[in-house]
Amino acid sequence: MPSTPNSADAKARARAFGLACGRLTPGPRNAITDVPGVRVGHVTLNDGAIQTGVTAVLPHAGNLYRDKPVAAAEVLNGFGKSVGLMQVEELGALETPILLTNTLSVGTASTALVRHAIAANPDIGRTTATVNPVVMECNDGPLNDIQALAVTEAHAAAAIAAALSEPDGAEVAVGSVGAGRGMSCFGFKGGIGTSSRRLKLDGRRHHLGVLVLANFGRPGELRLPDGRRVAPPAKDDAPEKGSVIVIAATDVPLDHRQLRRVIRRAGVGLARVGSFWGHGSGDIALGFTTANRIDHDGRADIVPLRMLNERRIDALFEAMADATQEAVVDALAAATPVVGRDGSTRPCLSDLLKSDGLTSGSIE
Amino acid sequence: MPSTPNSADAKARARAFGLACGRLTPGPRNAITDVPGVRVGHVTLNDGAIQTGVTAVLPHAGNLYRDKPVAAAEVLNGFGKSVGLMQVEELGALETPILLTNTLSVGTASTALVRHAIAANPDIGRTTATVNPVVMECNDGPLNDIQALAVTEAHAAAAIAAALSEPDGAEVAVGSVGAGRGMSCFGFKGGIGTSSRRLKLDGRRHHLGVLVLANFGRPGELRLPDGRRVAPPAKDDAPEKGSVIVIAATDVPLDHRQLRRVIRRAGVGLARVGSFWGHGSGDIALGFTTANRIDHDGRADIVPLRMLNERRIDALFEAMADATQEAVVDALAAATPVVGRDGSTRPCLSDLLKSDGLTSGSIE
Amino acid sequence: MPSTPNSADAKARARAFGLACGRLTPGPRNAITDVPGVRVGHVTLNDGAIQTGVTAVLPHAGNLYRDKPVAAAEVLNGFGKSVGLMQVEELGALETPILLTNTLSVGTASTALVRHAIAANPDIGRTTATVNPVVMECNDGPLNDIQALAVTEAHAAAAIAAALSEPDGAEVAVGSVGAGRGMSCFGFKGGIGTSSRRLKLDGRRHHLGVLVLANFGRPGELRLPDGRRVAPPAKDDAPEKGSVIVIAATDVPLDHRQLRRVIRRAGVGLARVGSFWGHGSGDIALGFTTANRIDHDGRADIVPLRMLNERRIDALFEAMADATQEAVVDALAAATPVVGRDGSTRPCLSDLLKSDGLTSGSIE
Amino acid sequence: MPSTPNSADAKARARAFGLACGRLTPGPRNAITDVPGVRVGHVTLNDGAIQTGVTAVLPHAGNLYRDKPVAAAEVLNGFGKSVGLMQVEELGALETPILLTNTLSVGTASTALVRHAIAANPDIGRTTATVNPVVMECNDGPLNDIQALAVTEAHAAAAIAAALSEPDGAEVAVGSVGAGRGMSCFGFKGGIGTSSRRLKLDGRRHHLGVLVLANFGRPGELRLPDGRRVAPPAKDDAPEKGSVIVIAATDVPLDHRQLRRVIRRAGVGLARVGSFWGHGSGDIALGFTTANRIDHDGRADIVPLRMLNERRIDALFEAMADATQEAVVDALAAATPVVGRDGSTRPCLSDLLKSDGLTSGSIE
Repeated sequence: MPSTPNSADAKARARAFGLACGRLTPGPRNAITDVPGVRVGHVTLNDGAIQTGVTAVLPHAGNLYRDKPVAAAEVLNGFGKSVGLMQVEELGALETPILLTNTLSVGTASTALVRHAIAANPDIGRTTATVNPVVMECNDGPLNDIQALAVTEAHAAAAIAAALSEPDGAEVAVGSVGAGRGMSCFGFKGGIGTSSRRLKLDGRRHHLGVLVLANFGRPGELRLPDGRRVAPPAKDDAPEKGSVIVIAATDVPLDHRQLRRVIRRAGVGLARVGSFWGHGSGDIALGFTTANRIDHDGRADIVPLRMLNERRIDALFEAMADATQEAVVDALAAATPVVGRDGSTRPCLSDLLKSDGLTSGSIE
Repeated sequence: MPSTPNSADAKARARAFGLACGRLTPGPRNAITDVPGVRVGHVTLNDGAIQTGVTAVLPHAGNLYRDKPVAAAEVLNGFGKSVGLMQVEELGALETPILLTNTLSVGTASTALVRHAIAANPDIGRTTATVNPVVMECNDGPLNDIQALAVTEAHAAAAIAAALSEPDGAEVAVGSVGAGRGMSCFGFKGGIGTSSRRLKLDGRRHHLGVLVLANFGRPGELRLPDGRRVAPPAKDDAPEKGSVIVIAATDVPLDHRQLRRVIRRAGVGLARVGSFWGHGSGDIALGFTTANRIDHDGRADIVPLRMLNERRIDALFEAMADATQEAVVDALAAATPVVGRDGSTRPCLSDLLKSDGLTSGSIE
Repeated sequence: MPSTPNSADAKARARAFGLACGRLTPGPRNAITDVPGVRVGHVTLNDGAIQTGVTAVLPHAGNLYRDKPVAAAEVLNGFGKSVGLMQVEELGALETPILLTNTLSVGTASTALVRHAIAANPDIGRTTATVNPVVMECNDGPLNDIQALAVTEAHAAAAIAAALSEPDGAEVAVGSVGAGRGMSCFGFKGGIGTSSRRLKLDGRRHHLGVLVLANFGRPGELRLPDGRRVAPPAKDDAPEKGSVIVIAATDVPLDHRQLRRVIRRAGVGLARVGSFWGHGSGDIALGFTTANRIDHDGRADIVPLRMLNERRIDALFEAMADATQEAVVDALAAATPVVGRDGSTRPCLSDLLKSDGLTSGSIE
Repeated sequence: MPSTPNSADAKARARAFGLACGRLTPGPRNAITDVPGVRVGHVTLNDGAIQTGVTAVLPHAGNLYRDKPVAAAEVLNGFGKSVGLMQVEELGALETPILLTNTLSVGTASTALVRHAIAANPDIGRTTATVNPVVMECNDGPLNDIQALAVTEAHAAAAIAAALSEPDGAEVAVGSVGAGRGMSCFGFKGGIGTSSRRLKLDGRRHHLGVLVLANFGRPGELRLPDGRRVAPPAKDDAPEKGSVIVIAATDVPLDHRQLRRVIRRAGVGLARVGSFWGHGSGDIALGFTTANRIDHDGRADIVPLRMLNERRIDALFEAMADATQEAVVDALAAATPVVGRDGSTRPCLSDLLKSDGLTSGSIE
């Protein structure tokens, strides 16, 4: 039976282990939800060999099809099956919730988004255009029976509903939850992580928040923000088959081009934790700003927009790199044990970090 | 009940109306199947408001996941929901059949491809990578009840089976069949069309073949290859909401970069028939060559490949432009009447071309 | 001695021969200068085997480095040597005049732009950034002794000065002038052409204007807007080695992404005149909007911008396709005879269009 | 008077300070010249305020226009003025030496390459195509009087001649030489650095080598491969205005797409040393393989090529990331003091690394 855990355990966040990244200050929750309006919801499937789930990220709680945030996508390594990015790049906008799930469930999640959009917008495919579902994925095959295609449209809908049931500015459940349930990362248990950074522009406070689905990295190559390298107890020599999805949200007004420049710096954060964007790893970033919206039904021909003075963009680059790095560490720190397909497991980084004697694994 | 018409009616092809494009010679069937190995299968749904379908294009009849043709994708206008193109661009290869269907059925068709791949390759998501389904689409909403999501996984599987049941080098059914069932084009009935061109390289015969799913173009802007402009009887002033998918196959050995250059010229063919790649039209091309294949299980580190002497590539550019243009005209010429949702219809170009008095519509 | 002809001969424009494209209305001069602020200047080199020149296009007459128009570039076929496009795509802005010249003079023109920018902005490379010169080119080798590298920095500076000496809204000299001096097009004499279209948005008049440097197209494949094919008297079977540069200006407020979508439709206009974007032809478009500017010294962190309601963008797509097509025809119609290297010449389309008997060449 | 130092000082390489990156083994010279055929030549200008130069990288010592190595370019951050990359991406080949120099000298270096190509290939612009010069740059304005445009065509030609005078497999002079003369990096003296990695494929030894022009990074953010952060004595709070150019060479046979994937991992190496690809930093990679060549005059229509089994590509990704990282550290380690414009200087990392007491600067 799927569960929808939406409360975070503050003790299991990266910073509880002293693992902070960079010099900028996080937002109050150090989460993607520090960007006002953003909601996150999870559905977790935990049933024997079925260890998977769905995570929904909503730029706002309203009708996204009618009120589209400006968005951009960046493909660091395109060995992945995410859908919807082509239209995001052409039109520079998002019009559905973003769903994260396992690789083989993308089609089902995509159909769920279509039904969700039609329910709220009965003119879709009738008197207005169709809808562009955005679903992103990682391969949780090593822990989850991915061939079972266990995620249903109902699970996807429940993840959206869970997100909508959250108040604005809620904590985000991280670790082995939602789409992160069966994920692995640098030989450890991976999953969902999040982080945010505060930015001051024209004297006003803004945020950039990141949520990752972390399922990448070769065992032995994880590097903590303090420079230590960490290896799991038993190294697996298999080539990397994972991926990582990086979702960025901000309330800084950016145009599509600027947003794309910002989210590209996800690659910096991933490199810092020890990845070289391995061949088998679909490393994809998607970003949106809540500060520029496209009105689906707008009647004016010319519409106002705001953008960042480009000379200030380094602040966002730095925030993006730092928050991506920390969100990955957060996913590792928060991940709880999962026993999956054929009894397979992954060690938890938190166990290694907590232990004194380091009887297993290694930290250099 | 779905039908799987796989025999073409030669009388209803573009050339039967004297509508040939360019100076190059077509292959024996003037079809994408002139490229040895390529198969096409349709499943057509014709049931009241349900006027839609699935078309499968197979680069060869073997295991595509094990024996991947080199492929490339080109996005002329990314207002579309096709899936799988990101990985095609990253890895330069195709590993499933290509399915064409209506916009909102992409998720279902995608899942069907996943199941099809797993059935033939039980190691997917277990001991080898996952699989990248390629599904392309147009919006048939004006004639089909697209909100019904009538296409099932079984329909998608049946389209693949229909393709596999064809012999090598078969005729291709065109017009209001398969994914083309509910499509419209320049105010006329659109659908599936195909064409090919013969190429001589190093003294040997090769082919480039194109298949289109034609669902684009503003009424009144269709231009026939002889220069005539053709308008349907009643012009619709609605903005273009259609799309066009162009699939190109060749047995000329090309690398990914060359293939992408070739298929980009789909845009030329579309411009010639009267399109300016309208905002609402997802104009996407996908191409593959059967002459360069990637062995999924290959053990050698370095593998041979062949490519075209780039100074000969104009021959392929010309073939691509001409065959795309003619495939669109072919779809229009072959389209048979469809009565769809709310009794809506589109006039058939063939009726206009056959009539003497031109009592309705206009040809200038 | 170079000359700087800046007056247009209205009799030698495309429309004087009845060659109008599309259904939209041109601006008052049917020229890129219908966009307020835009200036064009030419320097023409006409000395025996030296038949070449420089054309300058200025988005406005002020300090472009300080007041940068939003800009975008689109590469239809990258077999070309234009410089500066990478930064235009990254930053979405133009900061120098655009210079057009022959292929091998790009370096010299580029250095001239650097000196021009430093002269007006002594802080370049000292207390502020460097400068990104934009130079675009075609190969006029068949008529011009291109190996002579005859264009000097002084010529480039003179072209800018010529542009600045023009009043706002001046006529544009077209044909065998400036960078167009030695160009060929579909076997005819090519060169500079221009055209514009009027657009009404929110009840106010706007324009989109295009200027082309036309040096492309295989002899025998030129198609006039009325559908006639035109071949020069003696066909040359050499593969296409030319190129075409398309500069688009508008006072419609667009963001970088929208601008790039618009200028991509240059490819439609080129296809309509008979090109398939041949292998050897560097087909490149660059566009800017005068309605969105980046202040180099701006101190606010967030700046306002305006963009187009995307649902109106088809009007700009159509204007771009039509104006590109007509600008090419304009270049052909306006081109005057040039005797170049080794006495080589190209027939003028205007001679063919004027003649009754069509004693040479052919129009179908 | 310019000097052409082509002998490396082994004591001043990164590894002499114990600064090795990654687990792979370098080639015999730990230099780009470990790839057979590759030559490097420098011309250094050292005259008061003029502290700049030119570096030439030649894929082989033959006629590059006739015998073009397969090549690819990757733009991590396009705030830069490098030229020639557009055609490299379209045609997947390099046809001139690669020149590195300061930003404002790109035009001059470009013209020098044109003359160099014409001298060896008198048919350029006559009976064959023109030529695509590739020049890449960084802004050495803080140390060099960049407005002086001191680099001449003769300097560029001398750098090529210096490269050609080297034997195959020569050491590479690194540090404050050639184009690296006036460069800065993380607040230290930057310049030219190089590194290589050995790769075994099908039982045979291959190499991937990298050469960087390092002129990027915010003071205080440099991270050594052992995890230490290093700050210069006096931090400069100016925003980053530098850049970094990464040239990769390999004798592993790759096609254009694979090569582009490989060189993209330059971004990983840059992130590891402490960069987030800052706004003002044009971070560009260019790569070529000597194992696949395009014959300019080839007469066969179909030509053989070899490519890598994609499942082995992680070895090249790792080599690229490691060699890029180490080449930057190498540039820093090798850089010797330069007194430039207005007496400005940058501290040398080597001084900090050698000192016991760390009286200035800091290593954490």
